[in-house]
Amino acid sequence: MLKTINQSIRTGISFSSKGIVARTHATRFYSVKLTSSKYPALKRSEVFKQLNSDDLRYFESILTKAEILRPSDSENLSLYNEDWMRKYKGQSKLVLKPKSVEKISLILKYCNQEKLAVVPQGGNTDLVGGSVPVFDEIILSLNNLNKIREFDPLTGIFKCDAGVILENANTFLNKHDYMFPLDLGAKGSCQIGGCVSTNAGGLRLLRYGSLHGSVLGLEVVLPNGEIVSSMHSLRKDNTGYDLKQLFIGAEGTIGVVTGASILTAPNPKAVNVSFLALEDFDKILKLYGKAKSELCENLSAFEFMDKESMTLTDIHLKGELAFPLGENEHPFYILIEVSGSNKSHNDAKLESFLEGAMEEDLIIDGTIAQDETELQNLWKWRETVPESCLSQGGVYKYDVSLPLKDLYSLVDATNARLISKGLMSENPNDKDPNKPAIGATGYGHIGDGNLHLNIAVNEYTKEIEEALEPFVYEFVQSKKGSISAEHGLGLQKKNYVKYSRSPIEIQMMKDLKHHYDPNGIMNPYKYI
Amino acid sequence: MLKTINQSIRTGISFSSKGIVARTHATRFYSVKLTSSKYPALKRSEVFKQLNSDDLRYFESILTKAEILRPSDSENLSLYNEDWMRKYKGQSKLVLKPKSVEKISLILKYCNQEKLAVVPQGGNTDLVGGSVPVFDEIILSLNNLNKIREFDPLTGIFKCDAGVILENANTFLNKHDYMFPLDLGAKGSCQIGGCVSTNAGGLRLLRYGSLHGSVLGLEVVLPNGEIVSSMHSLRKDNTGYDLKQLFIGAEGTIGVVTGASILTAPNPKAVNVSFLALEDFDKILKLYGKAKSELCENLSAFEFMDKESMTLTDIHLKGELAFPLGENEHPFYILIEVSGSNKSHNDAKLESFLEGAMEEDLIIDGTIAQDETELQNLWKWRETVPESCLSQGGVYKYDVSLPLKDLYSLVDATNARLISKGLMSENPNDKDPNKPAIGATGYGHIGDGNLHLNIAVNEYTKEIEEALEPFVYEFVQSKKGSISAEHGLGLQKKNYVKYSRSPIEIQMMKDLKHHYDPNGIMNPYKYI
Repeated sequence: MLKTINQSIRTGISFSSKGIVARTHATRFYSVKLTSSKYPALKRSEVFKQLNSDDLRYFESILTKAEILRPSDSENLSLYNEDWMRKYKGQSKLVLKPKSVEKISLILKYCNQEKLAVVPQGGNTDLVGGSVPVFDEIILSLNNLNKIREFDPLTGIFKCDAGVILENANTFLNKHDYMFPLDLGAKGSCQIGGCVSTNAGGLRLLRYGSLHGSVLGLEVVLPNGEIVSSMHSLRKDNTGYDLKQLFIGAEGTIGVVTGASILTAPNPKAVNVSFLALEDFDKILKLYGKAKSELCENLSAFEFMDKESMTLTDIHLKGELAFPLGENEHPFYILIEVSGSNKSHNDAKLESFLEGAMEEDLIIDGTIAQDETELQNLWKWRETVPESCLSQGGVYKYDVSLPLKDLYSLVDATNARLISKGLMSENPNDKDPNKPAIGATGYGHIGDGNLHLNIAVNEYTKEIEEALEPFVYEFVQSKKGSISAEHGLGLQKKNYVKYSRSPIEIQMMKDLKHHYDPNGIMNPYKYI
Repeated sequence: MLKTINQSIRTGISFSSKGIVARTHATRFYSVKLTSSKYPALKRSEVFKQLNSDDLRYFESILTKAEILRPSDSENLSLYNEDWMRKYKGQSKLVLKPKSVEKISLILKYCNQEKLAVVPQGGNTDLVGGSVPVFDEIILSLNNLNKIREFDPLTGIFKCDAGVILENANTFLNKHDYMFPLDLGAKGSCQIGGCVSTNAGGLRLLRYGSLHGSVLGLEVVLPNGEIVSSMHSLRKDNTGYDLKQLFIGAEGTIGVVTGASILTAPNPKAVNVSFLALEDFDKILKLYGKAKSELCENLSAFEFMDKESMTLTDIHLKGELAFPLGENEHPFYILIEVSGSNKSHNDAKLESFLEGAMEEDLIIDGTIAQDETELQNLWKWRETVPESCLSQGGVYKYDVSLPLKDLYSLVDATNARLISKGLMSENPNDKDPNKPAIGATGYGHIGDGNLHLNIAVNEYTKEIEEALEPFVYEFVQSKKGSISAEHGLGLQKKNYVKYSRSPIEIQMMKDLKHHYDPNGIMNPYKYI
């Protein structure tokens, strides 16, 4: 029997602005070290010029006061120099926030000529130190380039500036009965240009595919200032190399995405969610196979969380929401979302699927949302996990792809490693404050083979870092996985690309970087 | 009221091997001119070496007899030198059919060193002269690289050699309750590597998206012989530039695709098809909007055919199948396919949708397939159009993307143009044998904004060609469309890229071509 959720509090949940929430927690206990002090081996490149008064005069000649931010201004420069996890901190003395593509073109052309390094920055919700400077790079913020350009309600093709916030794009589309084909925790802060530049994956990839499929056109400014405008409204266009693909996931290293044309999806008329408990990971895989086959075109999410991640979320929510299944007593939980054009079909499919799964002994317990509030509350148990892991102190985050059968083994292996190094307590219930690590949790997107491995810690220490790296990457390599499923490379993974890419691929990437950015001014010290 | 189909003959239809069928028709009336005579302005590049006996000795040293085809061999070289539409004919004296990737690597390395030009060739079902030589280029056939490598029934990830025929891949997948996320008329001959290299679109794109989304990994041999093996099994992988994307749709100009890893889709348990008549194009657009909203996740095809294309198909089928709606008396027809995991849900959605469409006066007449045979027969009225256009003599084919509202206007404009030039009869029913052109027809994929403009002709003449080009391309440019939606550039559209791409995009493409193939040996005279 499936019971319905015991909902204790209605909270008016908004999943937006995760970055801000998490930052509030993180600032409780430590200030951010400069990246250059944290990684002393990293040296500022002498190729790059130091910003001088001539440069400032030039920028002042092409930009208004509101488009330039300096240390003397009232707005806090550290909001641009620090990442939201507060692991990286740059020392930029200049943020440029141009209001037009033409101004971005002038800026890059000048920086390229003068060899001034530049970090393009969207919503700064990056998780790998990709969106903040390492040294004194100029920050090129897209915040002021934030207009929706056009929308065609027949085709669903949506065009906007890079700086449009994902949630705003989605709200606009909802009014036209469409939705953005991408959803992620940071939606209240992250920008479309940043999503494209990092090839963001998120919660809807299972159903709507990756941005490599849904981006129809881009407007990009190259490092030399040239504007490449390919804002096509065409689903099919086979007229030569698909150049835009190179910029999807390039993390601003070969140009700046300034606009995007995106194929959006009709808003499903009915959505439902079920939250299930399972006793082992093997059953998760069996349940996933069954869901693919039976829920098929209606399956829009198949997310998993382990017990530990639910424990941390429970602590973080502080009783704001009762756990959907009474007690958090099972090793694994699954959140299944179905969506489609007909509520009764949706519900019938989901119920028949769940009954079958109970009969086949795949699930131990479960609940189905009865209304929109319950649905949002169930999602909260999945969407709050990232910030819950952080709320205990700090968190080391790894975002990897692994073959499905091996997906969870990395969590077990990481805990075993931390215990063997004496860095965490052997008993998961014994939160020893003298041990720097609290424990590894796993959650993520089964449908995408994407594990988020989070190691909650009381503090960030060199010992933990050395225990984790390259251990995690070597593990992933041994299983032929990817060391970055959706978070990208940034600064954090620059030196670990070799665990996922062959020497010839790395060489090809370096060649491309050099081809488009021969002076190396774009987002230096990172990526490749 | 919707009536059911009046099915006259059960024919055991197979939609495979379209190329062969069409070739039989085309050979009836003329032999193929050499491309070099047809386009005298095109000159063989002096950079390329002429094949000599040393070269042959080298190839004989690395390949077996069965892997080399010369004019003295019994197998007909013209099958490799001519395209299936018989519009292009090369003069290659050597076809290499290596059985391993390593041999392809050796071949390309040698050709690159010796400056021997190479045309990679898959199933040779190309429509723009891309898969056959222009002069004496060596043909590198993928026919012997045709193994399915692996398949994971849980994730649906399928890996195979480039030479696997699309229909064989699909048959294999069907046994595992999966399907290839791509379907097209040439499926019985075209190969996976060719599909990837031309970014084939076809009939399932509306539902399953483009190959830029479903290709997870590729194995490619670069012009210098280096093997880039990225046959990933990962849905998410953000570890650097997505290099494989460059080779999707590159038409063999910067390397040869030798293997692909592809995300396939679960086979829908239920499929149904409806064939509808509409009185104007505007109603097609309204019906499409309604279908997107109401059939949503179940909509898997929304194809349109005009009256003229149905007339030609009727003549071509010679009474083998009765027209689905009694008489072909309406200006437009639509084929809608719904597919999903539950037959009764599928049928209920489709029927409710059609009832609404009748009430709203969007459709005049229609029929729903009652069984698999009727379903296949209805599809035949769409899938047979291309060869039916050809069966009257010859056909000029244009494959363009246009904004939906302008999609059909190109057909009207083309007919008006041919009439104004005295090349076709003013009265569509008067098939004047003294006029070289019979008339323009339009059909295609509404969901993709993709029009197939076919101009049926009694013979190919310079006058028709001059009336059509650059007229068609200028028209497409004026509407911001694409001069090649899914067929690619090949030889036919090399000089017309400028109608769809900006000077800077063309320069970027040329730079990429030069970057990967500095000697220009790969598929020369074409593409960019």
